[in-house]
Amino acid sequence: MSVTRPRQRTAVELAAPARGRPNTALHVTGIALTFVSVGMAIATVIELASTNVDTMALLVSTLICSGLGIGLWYSTHAGAVRTRDVFAAVGWTWLSMTLVGALPFLFAGTFAPGGADFWEQVVNSVFEAASGFSCTGSTALTDFDNPGRGLMMYRQATQWYGGMGIVVLAVTVLPFLGVGGLDLITAEAPGPSSDRLAPRVSETARQLWVIYVLFTLTVGLVLFLIPGPSLYDSVAHALSTTSTGGFSPNAASIGHYDSIAVEVAIMAGMLYGGINFALHWRAARGGLSAYGRDSELRTFLSILLAACAVVVTVLWLDAGDNVASLADSVRYGVFNAISLGTSTGFGNATEAGSPGDFVHWAAGAQIVILFLFVMGGSTGSTSGGIKVMRVQVLFSHTIRSIRRTQLPRAVLPVKHGKVAVAEDIVSRMAGFFLLYVLLISVGVALLTGLGAGFEESIGAIVGALGNMGPALGEAGPTASFSDAFSQPARLVLSAFMLIGRLEIFPMLLMFAAPYRAISDSLRR
Amino acid sequence: MSVTRPRQRTAVELAAPARGRPNTALHVTGIALTFVSVGMAIATVIELASTNVDTMALLVSTLICSGLGIGLWYSTHAGAVRTRDVFAAVGWTWLSMTLVGALPFLFAGTFAPGGADFWEQVVNSVFEAASGFSCTGSTALTDFDNPGRGLMMYRQATQWYGGMGIVVLAVTVLPFLGVGGLDLITAEAPGPSSDRLAPRVSETARQLWVIYVLFTLTVGLVLFLIPGPSLYDSVAHALSTTSTGGFSPNAASIGHYDSIAVEVAIMAGMLYGGINFALHWRAARGGLSAYGRDSELRTFLSILLAACAVVVTVLWLDAGDNVASLADSVRYGVFNAISLGTSTGFGNATEAGSPGDFVHWAAGAQIVILFLFVMGGSTGSTSGGIKVMRVQVLFSHTIRSIRRTQLPRAVLPVKHGKVAVAEDIVSRMAGFFLLYVLLISVGVALLTGLGAGFEESIGAIVGALGNMGPALGEAGPTASFSDAFSQPARLVLSAFMLIGRLEIFPMLLMFAAPYRAISDSLRR
Repeated sequence: MSVTRPRQRTAVELAAPARGRPNTALHVTGIALTFVSVGMAIATVIELASTNVDTMALLVSTLICSGLGIGLWYSTHAGAVRTRDVFAAVGWTWLSMTLVGALPFLFAGTFAPGGADFWEQVVNSVFEAASGFSCTGSTALTDFDNPGRGLMMYRQATQWYGGMGIVVLAVTVLPFLGVGGLDLITAEAPGPSSDRLAPRVSETARQLWVIYVLFTLTVGLVLFLIPGPSLYDSVAHALSTTSTGGFSPNAASIGHYDSIAVEVAIMAGMLYGGINFALHWRAARGGLSAYGRDSELRTFLSILLAACAVVVTVLWLDAGDNVASLADSVRYGVFNAISLGTSTGFGNATEAGSPGDFVHWAAGAQIVILFLFVMGGSTGSTSGGIKVMRVQVLFSHTIRSIRRTQLPRAVLPVKHGKVAVAEDIVSRMAGFFLLYVLLISVGVALLTGLGAGFEESIGAIVGALGNMGPALGEAGPTASFSDAFSQPARLVLSAFMLIGRLEIFPMLLMFAAPYRAISDSLRR
Repeated sequence: MSVTRPRQRTAVELAAPARGRPNTALHVTGIALTFVSVGMAIATVIELASTNVDTMALLVSTLICSGLGIGLWYSTHAGAVRTRDVFAAVGWTWLSMTLVGALPFLFAGTFAPGGADFWEQVVNSVFEAASGFSCTGSTALTDFDNPGRGLMMYRQATQWYGGMGIVVLAVTVLPFLGVGGLDLITAEAPGPSSDRLAPRVSETARQLWVIYVLFTLTVGLVLFLIPGPSLYDSVAHALSTTSTGGFSPNAASIGHYDSIAVEVAIMAGMLYGGINFALHWRAARGGLSAYGRDSELRTFLSILLAACAVVVTVLWLDAGDNVASLADSVRYGVFNAISLGTSTGFGNATEAGSPGDFVHWAAGAQIVILFLFVMGGSTGSTSGGIKVMRVQVLFSHTIRSIRRTQLPRAVLPVKHGKVAVAEDIVSRMAGFFLLYVLLISVGVALLTGLGAGFEESIGAIVGALGNMGPALGEAGPTASFSDAFSQPARLVLSAFMLIGRLEIFPMLLMFAAPYRAISDSLRR
């Protein structure tokens, strides 16, 4: 079977009247760093007006980040628009954001308490920034009171930037590259399909950002109106809810408030963020019925409902775990199922060992959680994992492989909703899943090789690749990764967060583009 | 893409001048039970001549098994030869062997010590028989000295019968059904391909059995010539080495002899048994060069070599585990890597916690072991797992999915050795892998839901599906499954052993054939 794809056009024609050297990767990186430096500047102002302990660290970082960003932006223009250049641009952008974005933590000495040496601080700062920009939410922090309020708000903002980048990337850029899985939606429903988006990427990006900003404001406002969170807390959690990131300025995350109203508001926000933003876009234009017609959304909600039911039942029936009553089973089971089913990673445990601490749950409930780790949310959303649509298509492929043996002569298409999926797409999705499993194997081998335990390694790698946040075992929702994993293990996890965030391929191919450019030029 | 397969012919025209009712499943089951009853009869004689404690149990079982077998054989003939009937026949045969084969253990009260009630004895007997006929090697036995020597030899023979059945099934029957993966070999090399075998299945089966019997005799003779194993022990271990089964009449398995010579002989036997018997057949006819030309064998040996190297290095470098010296690291690392890489499951630990007990190894070495659990040996061999050839093709598919994103317009075939694999076969193998992962997920969910721990459940399900034997955690190579898992969990594991043994599909479809026969007849 031929493996060609119809046309290849790219979306990175955003901002470029030809100026400076043609280099797509550096140009996009420059734009991204400039955006991030705006967040740093705002955080600097907040820091100055509040705790005023990390102001200099934030100010210097702002200057470096904006200098680098504006410098790259204006000294280059979007050059080649071949597939591999777009991949490289995406990969280098996230890597640069992570490295430059780690500076405020490093300068502020956020990870200095406890006598950490320089490299320990570097590793933790990079880990925290990777966790932020990938919307993962794992943290190396142990002392949440030490950093200034401005720096902690910057930490929240990293997730918001990461989510904003991903929404645009997943809906507009990745489908061009045949990665995001949205090629399916293109065939299925009207909306911002890659074909139609092509000539007006920047316009669609603007519309998606409007949705994203309005959504953030709504979550922040609702949280502020509920007794408990301050204005600061409301904004901070709005930033990491919208992006299904999971960072919180509180050590006990959402459990800090011990408030059902806050938890319900956060759950609603996580659900909205876990849904395809292209679908939100369609619903905003054509009415709410767009949600009802979407096969992926129906499956997503059904799986979440089933997961909640199983977790609540297991928690309720199992006397041995840390959840006592039916009411607690529902409250903590549903919150954690939605938090992990959308790959956010907020916890509502008030302290280690309390009912919301799922590390102490029965193994049966933990397996459901591990499944949600792997699945993640919808395509085109800010959540991670394999994505519901891929799970749907691959499940249909699995069922077909059973039916095929019964009906060897029949032509059995793989279906998504009512639409037959092209064999080419099925094959690519199977390839993606195989690569995902291969990466998990490699990651677990690396982590256990570096001395981590079996259960912790599986939980942490699956969680990092799925941009989840907490892991299992000793790296659960109330623990810090700096205690649970060695320095090199935390770097491995940082890499896996970025790999998972960008749907694997850009991070694997980002080094291929320069290499190929060199080998091409040598061949000439 | 069309999913048709060229022709469908079936191999079950073995023994049938039309006699009695036409029913392929019952007919094949009858033949199998008759064969098994011969083993029971021999075991009865051994029991009578040695310990003479379980003679009556074996005698009664022999009568029941032979009565059922001969009755079914002669009251039916191979009727329909449609795909689904062959699947059903294979599934029912293994299920019947397991249930009837459990009788000697039940009648002898093998699992009665320790005050086990009737159902506990039934579950353990079925578990032991399933583990035997699927060549898995997990055991529910705790007291190895209690059962008679004849009964213990019967236990060894269950694995030998299972292996014999699998060799014929994998090389001659499954490829017809598009399951075994040998369709690839068919295209690649001369030998007993499904096309050429079709008209003379019984002749090829006879030849494969000759190789299998000669191989068994050789292993037995070599073991007997080495100081240590008695004649009884040599025969017993020959039966379970040839079939890469892993049962041993000793509680400490091969560790009982604490002899490097015995271990080397067993390793050679396991390696031979883990290689495609169609390849042995070709080598016997056309010379040893057949081995050198086989891509799967080269990959298999390379992976085993790499696994040995990693395990030995980890054991040697890691001071925290139970292996002290470099010599011990080599001896115990290599033996266990080969034992698990061929899905045999023999252990050379002399006691719990001794250097060969891999449950106490560093997590890094255990991950390599878990990978070998999943991979298994060659197609067409008696070992289990996904099989090396599938791993090869799926790995090539994975690499292609990376290259595809770089070269979206190129036609990139998946390769096995130097041969391009048809997309249809790649798709079926991906489907098989997805089903394998799905089954592991379901199995782990069931086991943890039944109260087993996280690590034990993953190890046991992957081990059962891969026909491995020992699991991880509390169900390691020196432990008994009756201590580590609850009654329903042991039944789940029994089912998974049979599902894994038959490459999944026959066990899933065996209930579909009668159902479809009924629905077909209603439609008429």
